[in-house]
Amino acid sequence: MNSCFKLEIKNHVAELSFNRPKKANALNLESWETMQDIFLALGENPEVRVIILSGEGKHFCAGIDLETLMSSHHGDSDCQAKKNLHLRAFIKKLQGSISSIEQCGKPVLAAIHNGCIGGGVDIISACDMRYCTRGAYFTIKEIELGLVADIGTLQRLPTIIHPGIMAEMAYTGRKVFGPEAKEIGLVNNYWESKDLMLENVRKIALQIASRSPLCVRGTKEMLLYKRDHSVQDSLDNMANYNAAMLVSKDLMEAFEASMLKREAKFED
Amino acid sequence: MNSCFKLEIKNHVAELSFNRPKKANALNLESWETMQDIFLALGENPEVRVIILSGEGKHFCAGIDLETLMSSHHGDSDCQAKKNLHLRAFIKKLQGSISSIEQCGKPVLAAIHNGCIGGGVDIISACDMRYCTRGAYFTIKEIELGLVADIGTLQRLPTIIHPGIMAEMAYTGRKVFGPEAKEIGLVNNYWESKDLMLENVRKIALQIASRSPLCVRGTKEMLLYKRDHSVQDSLDNMANYNAAMLVSKDLMEAFEASMLKREAKFED
Amino acid sequence: MNSCFKLEIKNHVAELSFNRPKKANALNLESWETMQDIFLALGENPEVRVIILSGEGKHFCAGIDLETLMSSHHGDSDCQAKKNLHLRAFIKKLQGSISSIEQCGKPVLAAIHNGCIGGGVDIISACDMRYCTRGAYFTIKEIELGLVADIGTLQRLPTIIHPGIMAEMAYTGRKVFGPEAKEIGLVNNYWESKDLMLENVRKIALQIASRSPLCVRGTKEMLLYKRDHSVQDSLDNMANYNAAMLVSKDLMEAFEASMLKREAKFED
Amino acid sequence: MNSCFKLEIKNHVAELSFNRPKKANALNLESWETMQDIFLALGENPEVRVIILSGEGKHFCAGIDLETLMSSHHGDSDCQAKKNLHLRAFIKKLQGSISSIEQCGKPVLAAIHNGCIGGGVDIISACDMRYCTRGAYFTIKEIELGLVADIGTLQRLPTIIHPGIMAEMAYTGRKVFGPEAKEIGLVNNYWESKDLMLENVRKIALQIASRSPLCVRGTKEMLLYKRDHSVQDSLDNMANYNAAMLVSKDLMEAFEASMLKREAKFED
Amino acid sequence: MNSCFKLEIKNHVAELSFNRPKKANALNLESWETMQDIFLALGENPEVRVIILSGEGKHFCAGIDLETLMSSHHGDSDCQAKKNLHLRAFIKKLQGSISSIEQCGKPVLAAIHNGCIGGGVDIISACDMRYCTRGAYFTIKEIELGLVADIGTLQRLPTIIHPGIMAEMAYTGRKVFGPEAKEIGLVNNYWESKDLMLENVRKIALQIASRSPLCVRGTKEMLLYKRDHSVQDSLDNMANYNAAMLVSKDLMEAFEASMLKREAKFED
Amino acid sequence: MNSCFKLEIKNHVAELSFNRPKKANALNLESWETMQDIFLALGENPEVRVIILSGEGKHFCAGIDLETLMSSHHGDSDCQAKKNLHLRAFIKKLQGSISSIEQCGKPVLAAIHNGCIGGGVDIISACDMRYCTRGAYFTIKEIELGLVADIGTLQRLPTIIHPGIMAEMAYTGRKVFGPEAKEIGLVNNYWESKDLMLENVRKIALQIASRSPLCVRGTKEMLLYKRDHSVQDSLDNMANYNAAMLVSKDLMEAFEASMLKREAKFED
Repeated sequence: MNSCFKLEIKNHVAELSFNRPKKANALNLESWETMQDIFLALGENPEVRVIILSGEGKHFCAGIDLETLMSSHHGDSDCQAKKNLHLRAFIKKLQGSISSIEQCGKPVLAAIHNGCIGGGVDIISACDMRYCTRGAYFTIKEIELGLVADIGTLQRLPTIIHPGIMAEMAYTGRKVFGPEAKEIGLVNNYWESKDLMLENVRKIALQIASRSPLCVRGTKEMLLYKRDHSVQDSLDNMANYNAAMLVSKDLMEAFEASMLKREAKFED
Repeated sequence: MNSCFKLEIKNHVAELSFNRPKKANALNLESWETMQDIFLALGENPEVRVIILSGEGKHFCAGIDLETLMSSHHGDSDCQAKKNLHLRAFIKKLQGSISSIEQCGKPVLAAIHNGCIGGGVDIISACDMRYCTRGAYFTIKEIELGLVADIGTLQRLPTIIHPGIMAEMAYTGRKVFGPEAKEIGLVNNYWESKDLMLENVRKIALQIASRSPLCVRGTKEMLLYKRDHSVQDSLDNMANYNAAMLVSKDLMEAFEASMLKREAKFED
Repeated sequence: MNSCFKLEIKNHVAELSFNRPKKANALNLESWETMQDIFLALGENPEVRVIILSGEGKHFCAGIDLETLMSSHHGDSDCQAKKNLHLRAFIKKLQGSISSIEQCGKPVLAAIHNGCIGGGVDIISACDMRYCTRGAYFTIKEIELGLVADIGTLQRLPTIIHPGIMAEMAYTGRKVFGPEAKEIGLVNNYWESKDLMLENVRKIALQIASRSPLCVRGTKEMLLYKRDHSVQDSLDNMANYNAAMLVSKDLMEAFEASMLKREAKFED
Repeated sequence: MNSCFKLEIKNHVAELSFNRPKKANALNLESWETMQDIFLALGENPEVRVIILSGEGKHFCAGIDLETLMSSHHGDSDCQAKKNLHLRAFIKKLQGSISSIEQCGKPVLAAIHNGCIGGGVDIISACDMRYCTRGAYFTIKEIELGLVADIGTLQRLPTIIHPGIMAEMAYTGRKVFGPEAKEIGLVNNYWESKDLMLENVRKIALQIASRSPLCVRGTKEMLLYKRDHSVQDSLDNMANYNAAMLVSKDLMEAFEASMLKREAKFED
Repeated sequence: MNSCFKLEIKNHVAELSFNRPKKANALNLESWETMQDIFLALGENPEVRVIILSGEGKHFCAGIDLETLMSSHHGDSDCQAKKNLHLRAFIKKLQGSISSIEQCGKPVLAAIHNGCIGGGVDIISACDMRYCTRGAYFTIKEIELGLVADIGTLQRLPTIIHPGIMAEMAYTGRKVFGPEAKEIGLVNNYWESKDLMLENVRKIALQIASRSPLCVRGTKEMLLYKRDHSVQDSLDNMANYNAAMLVSKDLMEAFEASMLKREAKFED
Repeated sequence: MNSCFKLEIKNHVAELSFNRPKKANALNLESWETMQDIFLALGENPEVRVIILSGEGKHFCAGIDLETLMSSHHGDSDCQAKKNLHLRAFIKKLQGSISSIEQCGKPVLAAIHNGCIGGGVDIISACDMRYCTRGAYFTIKEIELGLVADIGTLQRLPTIIHPGIMAEMAYTGRKVFGPEAKEIGLVNNYWESKDLMLENVRKIALQIASRSPLCVRGTKEMLLYKRDHSVQDSLDNMANYNAAMLVSKDLMEAFEASMLKREAKFED
């Protein structure tokens, strides 16, 4: 396990956390690569049914490590076009790292305390659900740094919060704290402390882990499909999907459990 | 009139209600077919300008009758592909029943009390507006039943509420009650009792019924078009539409009424 | 400067206001044309980094001047199709006037007091952010006038507020006041008086004006692109954009300022 | 069987022909309705695997019966908007009649001799394949009649032939004869006489009828899906489809037949 | 009239030609601007119903004047991002010049002799129909110049010719001559000499000019709409359009003329 | 180098060939995986500028090895849904192998002799250009095997050939030979023998290899983008791309070479 992250798997729940507390969990190049590898592995691990993403130390995540950013762009070409091509490849690489959260096929719950800054916002925008502490804050720091936020915030956050607030956050970089974050739909809920938050997020995670893994996976796939397609295309896709996937052992188990008033137990 | 539903038309308002109270208004196969027929008929009835959908008895709607579900999938073929083809046709049939709510061309106001469960959520997601009682609750029951919700919830609800809450509801199946439902945009408003709710929903319905039927219909068409198209395509479509439909007797009547400070009266 | 509008530019902030107070700032044909010209000019003026749009006198904006509407449709042709073609061109012209707000490339902050009626709602829907007074109200007046709102409200407002409330506003024409407007995401915030509102909106505008103009412009472009494209298309577009635009003097200035703990100063 | 059409089903092949030879097979209102009913019925008839569409008498099809056109538009309303709404409904009805050719799920082979005029071109554009005689001619007659071809030609023909020729045909209404029709991709092949054409088209039909009906149906569905979606969406849809439909008795039969070097026999 | 172009209007036909024969009709910056102005003016001139575009002197068009290209990119900024922003604006300006051919609303017939090189191919790709001489040749010269063709060829030519040939032309820059151009659908027809070609193209233009101008315009609009939308969206758009535009004086005139067996005469 | 393929790189041209002549170059599971690896590697190898794909032995490619197909679907689950999920993953894996041809960023020229069968057609549909011998034949064999062609043919071939012929090939499985293949746009050209074909294809490849690698790559990217986007989106994407990539050393080299009338030499 790479030292940039901490990972523990228990009761079908993977708890993953940023683990560079001295750097406020800023992500260097190695972290971006590792993150993609981890989500790929978690996606393929049948034991894992749901993932919690949090941060060790003082902050949730301080975004891209600026040194990384500054050092990685150049390439050594003396051709401007090739330099730009490399820069584009670099941006796409970071985008791909974040997209792995969506592609892992399992629900990802972000549990955020204190600072969620810049690249941190890009990351949580790709999670399925967001929860935080009262004191947590969210800021699209890029605008302060003379950057257009390019690895997911401007593409995914508008699908999550109202566009007026979206624009204000993106143009000003102002901090949004826990209670406002809940009001605008950025998080589902907030709690007074990190411990309390984690306790509650774990409960939600366990409940999801108790559901049919096949159905949870199918649900994630359908929600992502809908985000980018029309209602009719999504209905058709859903019908195709369930023509193949509806009749499952999980369905039988759920039916039997419901008849016998016992809890259902699903295989990995 | 089929016994699964109750229907009354008065003052241009059609009040339609689920009417299998002993089954908690669960919908059997006959109900699904009837529902589609009713909305088709209401759409073509010029006397009807707006529709209220509610439930008789203890619950609004308990969703798909499970026996229906279990009995309907098989088909008698011994070819797996043909069975799956039949299953797909069955899913599309239920989807089509719900889509008839959108296609009827008149505003549909869901008035929800107590349980709105599984298929009930699919149905209200296709209505134009949702209102409920404080005690009403909404639950994507499918996940408990080992199913991926396949007749509209995963396709339409994400266009109504924040995606984080959407995912939580879909993955956990937890109940959302009246006040939270208002907060997340699932309902426009809630009241303390079913009677109070109906009283208020009827007022809104009557107000809509007093508007130009032509314009209400056009507005519904434009809102549905926008949901699935870009802003520019929607503006172009709007311009084409009004090139043909702007100049109407309703426009003249509204203009005259406004000049004379009297209430406008529109023809069916 | 045309007398329908007042315009002042100071500290990189353009303050533009509707200026036909005797007509409750209703827009006649000349106003629509002027508005487009102004936003085009503001877009090209490097001194301007952000725009505030407000209204002089009692109301923010009463929408289309009805006389304008009534007089402009006909054309003198005796061919019905040609009349309709002219009518369509007229609608597209007004739509284009409003779209100029989006195309100017700079953030536009609507500061709304008292009535924002009919065409006024079309206009603020095309702004980046909306702020208002407690007493401000929003109404899709068109439905009362026997019209389908055709110059932006039905196309852009659904991307801003929950669809249930959207439908209710569009079908009934009821007024939504400041506090509810905030709740449903229509405005970012509201204040007790017009003065207080303007004071606060100016603060936000100044903060935006202090950011890199290049990045603010890029952010607006990306947010508009996302509104009408899939997440993946938007990520690809973003990567292409920043391959060309990331490395700028603004980036260097922001980096240096951040290192030296001084405020960044960006060129126009 | 309605007298506007002749229908014969033999060896899994349905031979359908326009049968108003005295009117050059012009379609009156009844014909349009009947055509939709027939294709619906053929789609549901398991005995039918492929359809040939031809014309009795001198011409293949002279398009819309002009009297029908002239008599059907008006409606009796004195409201211009309602008249236009009726006109639109009428156009959509004819469009729907033609779309039933695509929706029937079975390949439709148009076998064209002599005149294929106006509405006839709309119809053959919705067929899967087109064949003709050397003397057959195709003309977008609408332009001569002061009409924009509105029931499929301008929407489907551009997906069949080169856009330059498409435009020329649409703007001038000039006739395209058999050999040129083959050159531009409008027909797959042409023959010297109607008899020869029918003989060859029947051979092709019989070959299709000898294939797995399940696969032919799936192929039609996939080709129609592709026409209106991106390659990636189409690949994903294909994978969903075959996850449910690949493993079939037809597959087993084809495999066995291939092993035993005998001809495969598929169930309806 | 600008000296880069020659323009003559007669019998509703506008004959426009590139007129810098000494430069092989290469387009300098002024030409690009003028071309856009001309097509805008022709679009609004009711006397003009169809446009022929040809070239004076030895070649049809040699594309972008290289000096123009080399001189125009820089801008005087010392910020790389701003330079690139200017470059993008420059590309969009040239793209816009070409798009004016599509937006003018009247059919444009390109009549090509000898060289149609680089930017010339971008231009003819935006025309409705292309005709040429046997000796005419088409070459995507950009690849030889170290450029990706960026003002329309790579975007519009793939909608005109087979993708395999498209790719070969784009990757190699090889010349395609008249006969092959016809075979691959790039031109509708070719003739032995420029005079013969012009004689024939004029005949086609006159035939178009004799059709209802309203319908020709509507047809162009519908063909362009289809190019970028699904069949169903295009059918719906068509129905909306004709709800407003079907009933015209041109329709009546065409009907009467057809009854009386005389030629129809349409107003401008 | 895996024994299923032969690969040689010379003068910037990679010659890749199927190399299981005893199996008529049918692709087993290992071949599919290898093919993807190879195209990934060729994409990243700066020495390679263009790729020729041909077949050793009697046939170009016999498609999927049927034993592979039969053995790979099952998975060992006793849950029908999971089996279907595995089947879908298997289909997507093969699809992905073929998509690697598009994603490698370099032009791929298919050089086809004798049989191009089933999966072979899926593969060549993903190539940029196709060339063949007179005796080569193409057949969508899947329909004979009781399969819907699911790894690219039904998704990509309709973008290459006329839809009428597409449907005929897909429904009947009939063979299309060299000359007809050229006529319908399936291949760019055909020659009498394999040697002659390879000689000519190599010439074309060498010409492409002599062009700016940067521009060839950009051209492929733009052509693929256009295939799945509207013209306007494609123009915008193009402008963004060239804002970053236009100014290159290749451009300068091409310009200088053109001034000095010498051949341009581009770096890898």
